[in-house]
Amino acid sequence: MPSNGRLFVVLGGGGFLGINLTRRLVAAGHRVRAFGHAGLFTEACAGAEFRQGDFSDRAALTDALRGAEIAFHLVHSTVPQTANLDITGDVKENLIPSITFLDLAVEVGVKRVVFLSSGGTIYGRPLQIPTEETASTEPISAYGISKLAIEKYLALYGELFGLEYRILRVANPFGPFQVAKKKQGLLAEIIFRALGREPIEVWGDGSVVRDFVYVDDVTDALELAAVHTGGEHIFNIGSGIGRSVRNVLATVEQLLGRKLDIAWKAKRAVDVPVSILSVKRAREKLGWNPKTSFESGVAQTIAWWKENLDTVVGEAHIQKS
Amino acid sequence: MPSNGRLFVVLGGGGFLGINLTRRLVAAGHRVRAFGHAGLFTEACAGAEFRQGDFSDRAALTDALRGAEIAFHLVHSTVPQTANLDITGDVKENLIPSITFLDLAVEVGVKRVVFLSSGGTIYGRPLQIPTEETASTEPISAYGISKLAIEKYLALYGELFGLEYRILRVANPFGPFQVAKKKQGLLAEIIFRALGREPIEVWGDGSVVRDFVYVDDVTDALELAAVHTGGEHIFNIGSGIGRSVRNVLATVEQLLGRKLDIAWKAKRAVDVPVSILSVKRAREKLGWNPKTSFESGVAQTIAWWKENLDTVVGEAHIQKS
Repeated sequence: MPSNGRLFVVLGGGGFLGINLTRRLVAAGHRVRAFGHAGLFTEACAGAEFRQGDFSDRAALTDALRGAEIAFHLVHSTVPQTANLDITGDVKENLIPSITFLDLAVEVGVKRVVFLSSGGTIYGRPLQIPTEETASTEPISAYGISKLAIEKYLALYGELFGLEYRILRVANPFGPFQVAKKKQGLLAEIIFRALGREPIEVWGDGSVVRDFVYVDDVTDALELAAVHTGGEHIFNIGSGIGRSVRNVLATVEQLLGRKLDIAWKAKRAVDVPVSILSVKRAREKLGWNPKTSFESGVAQTIAWWKENLDTVVGEAHIQKS
Repeated sequence: MPSNGRLFVVLGGGGFLGINLTRRLVAAGHRVRAFGHAGLFTEACAGAEFRQGDFSDRAALTDALRGAEIAFHLVHSTVPQTANLDITGDVKENLIPSITFLDLAVEVGVKRVVFLSSGGTIYGRPLQIPTEETASTEPISAYGISKLAIEKYLALYGELFGLEYRILRVANPFGPFQVAKKKQGLLAEIIFRALGREPIEVWGDGSVVRDFVYVDDVTDALELAAVHTGGEHIFNIGSGIGRSVRNVLATVEQLLGRKLDIAWKAKRAVDVPVSILSVKRAREKLGWNPKTSFESGVAQTIAWWKENLDTVVGEAHIQKS
C-alpha cells in the first residue's frame, strides 16, 4: 500500500488496537496522526504524530481530522461489561460523539472512515454458528446496540454525503499492548494475573466459547479496509474458530508450564454462550486471512507481557496510591 | 378487553395516533392518561386524564407513568423529512429520552411498553416486497435509525429487567386528527389543501409506492399489542397493499368529484421508491386484520376534514400572526 503522502488518522490511537495499528502504518511508511488519550505506551507510536485529546472534544477532534484522507474510528469509552450500567451515558459518550465525528469528517473532507465494530456483541445470541455478516443483529448489551447504531449512521452518511466507509466486526482481539484496564481482554487479564501470581477471575464455568483473533491479523484487516474497493461495507474479522475459556486457560498453562490459580465467579448476563464469526467474506472479498495460530499469538503475548509487566504494574501502583 | 381498573398511559397523547388511541381506549371503558402537548383536539380525548408535558421532561414523565400498567410510546419529535437535517439533535430529542423513559418504566413498575415504530423507514430500500419483519433493517434516514435503535433498547430492557414490550412497525397511517403540521401525512396534506383550494405539493413524479393504513386499523393493532401473549415482539402494521401517490391523488379527486391542483416538486433522497409491508405475522399471531378499505378510509378522512377544516385553518392563522 503506497503512501502517496496521504494522511491516516487513528482515533483511539492511545488504546490497544490504536497503538498496534499506528505502529503498523508507520512501519509501512505512511503519514500517521494518532488521536486519543496518551497512555503507558504512547512512545511505542514513535514516528506518528500523537495528539492528546478526548473524542467528545469537538475542537480537538476537528484539528485531529484536518487533512486526513482516511480516519480509523477505534474509540469506545465503555465495554460490554460496563455499558449496561449507564445506558444513556453510553449513548452520550459514544454514539453522539460518533455522529459529530461523521459530521466533521464530511466537513473537513475525510474520504473514508474505517470503523471498529463488535463481532462479539452485535449479533446477540447468534442463531447461526459461525455467524455471517447477513445474520440478524440482536445485541443483548448496550455496547452492542451503540456499535450497531454507529454502523447505521455510517451507512446514512455514505448515502447522504458520499462518505466512504468500511466496518470491521472484530471478534475477541488479543495481543501486545492490551492491558485490560477496562475489564476487556480475557487473555490480557489472564496473562497479567498469571505473571503476577494473582488469582484469575473467570465468570461462569469456563464453557463460554469465543473467537479469539491475534492483533496483527486485525491490523492486517484494518489496513485492507482502508483501501478496499469492492461493494461490501461490513466484514467479520475473527479466527473463525471457537475456543472455550477453559481451553484458553489450558493454553496459557501449557505455555507458562504451570497451573493457574483460578477464582470462579458467577455467570454474567451480557455473555452470550457462543460467539464464532464466519470470516468467509473477509477472505473472499477483502483478501484477508488470519495468519497467526492461537498458540503462536498467545506465546507472543506472553513474551510481550514478560517485557512490560513492570511498566504496567508500576502504573497500577501509581493509580492505587 | 376488560379494564380491571388498570391504567393505560398514552405518551404522545396529543398527536394524531395518540388522540385516536386515547378515544378508543376511553370508549372501551379503560382508565386512560394521555401525556403530551395539548393541541387543537385535546378535548376530543374527554374521559381521559390529559397531562400536558414534554417527553424529555423527566419529572413530568415520571409523574405521568406512575401507576401505569401499560404505556404506549407514540412520541417522535422529528419526521423522516426533518430528522436528517440535525442528526445529533434527533438522537438527543428522541433516542435519549426514550432510554430515560425505559429507565422510568422499570423504576415505576410499568408492565408493558407498546412502541410505535416505523414500517416505512426501518427497512430502508427493501430487498423483499412485501417486506416481512425478518427482513434486514437498513434505514436510509436518521428517523429510521433512531426508531431502530429504540427497538433494540426495548429488547435490551426486556432482557435485563423483564420489561414486556411489543413493537408495531406501522406503514403510512392516515385518518381523522392527522393535521400534517410536521409535514408527515400525505393524505392529510392532500385533503387539507384540496379543501382549501391550495396547490398540492408532490415530491417526485408520483410513482413512489406506499402502504396506507387507516387509523382505526392501527388503533386495533395497538389495543391487541397491549394484551398479546405470544412470543413475537415485532409486528408490521399496514394494509399489505401498495398504492402510488398518483393513485392516492386520483382517489381523492374521485371522492371530491373534481381535479386537484398539483405542484410537482423534486424527488427527496429519503423517499424509498416502494414500501409495502407484509402483515402476515400480525394476521396470524396478533389476531389483527385491517378492516377498512382505502376508499372508505379516505372518505371518512374527507368527512372529518370537512367538519374540522375551520378549526385547523383558524389555528394556522393564529400561528402565522
